[in-house]
Amino acid sequence: MNNINILEEIRKQSPLVHNITNYVVMNNTANALLSIGASPVMAHSKDEVEDIVSISSSLVINMGTLSEKWIDSMIIAGKKAKLLGKPIVFDPVGVGASKYRTETAEKIITEVKPDVIRGNASEIMALAQLSTITKGVDSTARSFEAVDGALHLSKKLNNTIIVSGAVDYIVTKEKVTKVGNGSALMSKVTGMGCTATSIVGACIAVDKDLHNAAVSAMVFMGLAGEKAEKMSDGPGSFQVKFLDALHNLSADDPEEKTKVNEES
Amino acid sequence: MNNINILEEIRKQSPLVHNITNYVVMNNTANALLSIGASPVMAHSKDEVEDIVSISSSLVINMGTLSEKWIDSMIIAGKKAKLLGKPIVFDPVGVGASKYRTETAEKIITEVKPDVIRGNASEIMALAQLSTITKGVDSTARSFEAVDGALHLSKKLNNTIIVSGAVDYIVTKEKVTKVGNGSALMSKVTGMGCTATSIVGACIAVDKDLHNAAVSAMVFMGLAGEKAEKMSDGPGSFQVKFLDALHNLSADDPEEKTKVNEES
Amino acid sequence: MNNINILEEIRKQSPLVHNITNYVVMNNTANALLSIGASPVMAHSKDEVEDIVSISSSLVINMGTLSEKWIDSMIIAGKKAKLLGKPIVFDPVGVGASKYRTETAEKIITEVKPDVIRGNASEIMALAQLSTITKGVDSTARSFEAVDGALHLSKKLNNTIIVSGAVDYIVTKEKVTKVGNGSALMSKVTGMGCTATSIVGACIAVDKDLHNAAVSAMVFMGLAGEKAEKMSDGPGSFQVKFLDALHNLSADDPEEKTKVNEES
Repeated sequence: MNNINILEEIRKQSPLVHNITNYVVMNNTANALLSIGASPVMAHSKDEVEDIVSISSSLVINMGTLSEKWIDSMIIAGKKAKLLGKPIVFDPVGVGASKYRTETAEKIITEVKPDVIRGNASEIMALAQLSTITKGVDSTARSFEAVDGALHLSKKLNNTIIVSGAVDYIVTKEKVTKVGNGSALMSKVTGMGCTATSIVGACIAVDKDLHNAAVSAMVFMGLAGEKAEKMSDGPGSFQVKFLDALHNLSADDPEEKTKVNEES
Repeated sequence: MNNINILEEIRKQSPLVHNITNYVVMNNTANALLSIGASPVMAHSKDEVEDIVSISSSLVINMGTLSEKWIDSMIIAGKKAKLLGKPIVFDPVGVGASKYRTETAEKIITEVKPDVIRGNASEIMALAQLSTITKGVDSTARSFEAVDGALHLSKKLNNTIIVSGAVDYIVTKEKVTKVGNGSALMSKVTGMGCTATSIVGACIAVDKDLHNAAVSAMVFMGLAGEKAEKMSDGPGSFQVKFLDALHNLSADDPEEKTKVNEES
Repeated sequence: MNNINILEEIRKQSPLVHNITNYVVMNNTANALLSIGASPVMAHSKDEVEDIVSISSSLVINMGTLSEKWIDSMIIAGKKAKLLGKPIVFDPVGVGASKYRTETAEKIITEVKPDVIRGNASEIMALAQLSTITKGVDSTARSFEAVDGALHLSKKLNNTIIVSGAVDYIVTKEKVTKVGNGSALMSKVTGMGCTATSIVGACIAVDKDLHNAAVSAMVFMGLAGEKAEKMSDGPGSFQVKFLDALHNLSADDPEEKTKVNEES
């Protein structure tokens, strides 16, 4: 499917996207999913995540505000999703910033085997280091420097890795696609990365081609960001206009203005 | 009291409304309560909910992001509120979506005996099914289809049931009032239902006539939604304008533009 | 440093501010920190707060939505910050409203020894009562009535106390500075006090003169509030414009329009 098809499918199917995510962004990501046309559900108790994932079309796991019980639920939900063949996207927020985060990310990746992982350059490099001890973690990592790590990870994990930044790199084994859309204001609003991850959740719910779905998600984010920036006076109004722009993404926009390049 | 009186009383008394609610909407519902003139307090530890409910004028219980300890606190706070004669409104978010939610809603209703319950059509039908095994749950339920369930529930529980949707139905035993105000954009913003429940909390804090207070709450929501829609470009700006509209609800508006019908 | 220097340092250093705060305001305070130029991190598990505080420049402890495990983490993080010489600001939200809150505030103050405490008049008077049984708590306390309590507390705790309100009082032992900037709409938006506390966290991260840093934080809040009010139709748009205003605080504004008076 191309971007237009994916957008139309999201709006037609309104897929239920199960989010186990962090306290900071729950409201934003639920609203972003509604704005693009999906249906969000936020549920985290181990007593219900299997039921909720069973009625959902995809699962988003985001480790932003970690604690013990939430990790247990992430694993339980992730295993159930895998069993049922529901696609999973994982956001390893802050991996590398504490031993706890690093161990948790490794645990989730090993036990849940997410279909897509989205992080910034530092996060993807931290993950890559977990699976190869030949690279150090560079906290000032830029996107293109993390692509090597993403290529390594994608091959090892047999999944799709998104390195997001001013330019986003979507990596599936040997294939690298660049998305150049976006706005500098996105880095001044909390949870825009988490929002991208949720939008990936909506896209993989309607397109089984994970690479393709991941590219579309980053295009939708970037185009909405560009529109929002033009109508904003700062990060406060940007957030508001961003949701409006996601809601108003017309079916032709996602092709005409898309800055996508295939690298290999 | 009519709508104007209730609005004026909220602004005069600024009642403290104790919310035990979900992570997704805490910020929105606190802001909606402030915008209409009430004082929100969010507190959920079993170690303090009795103290907090004792200084509050009403209690809002919302089971959006459930977990074990929160349920315990909801029950403790609810029992204390009942003992002290403080009115309670309950929002059974997602009841029917998991066994856990269904059991929790039943437990809260049985142990706390909420004075008002507000849900969408599917939620109210799921609750009605709990008390009568003669009806199935229809996930595509529309408001008017759920009114039968609400009539049954209201008589059985001796309370007021709100079925919210494009048209809201407020049901107290044999009495049914319809509120036709509102905006389609309300379904594109997360937590508008939860916000309605909190506004009910503000209204029952100042008017002991529960049916009347519930009708006023839905009128305030609907009128603010209509105003906000006119000034919005999408769900992002709608949220912002909705809070402005609640804040600016003038004392005459709530009568002139209200679409209320008594059915029986 | 004067206000301009502090603002420039925040934007130059982009200090990492570790927040252990409440669910209601996490999103707002993270965005306020981003808007002024700092980097927020929200992390609360006892399994990682020591790691996170170690890489941060300051620590914000806010007890808005208290529960047991969070208190443990606040103490652990606070002790580690103290050990490492990282400045700590504490927001005793709602102290006095429940026995649990009062005991928790006392525990945190005793064990963590925060460098700055920010509260409204009632909260500061409740804290003052904890350390002197000669004064009663007045729930209708106004800022200037709480200054006596703040003077007492500051001397006893050897730190800086901020009493925020229509006029803010910053108190360090014998020194009292008043900040008169601000907007009445700030009291109609949830978490503006918590946001002030986080902005204090950004200022003390770049200026070791705690009194000075605290004054600057309240000036930034007040100036942004004044700008936002002029562009707002109510509390919804105020929130949005407030973040824009923090982002656009130009380097000269903070001196020209500041209403600061030294009292002693």
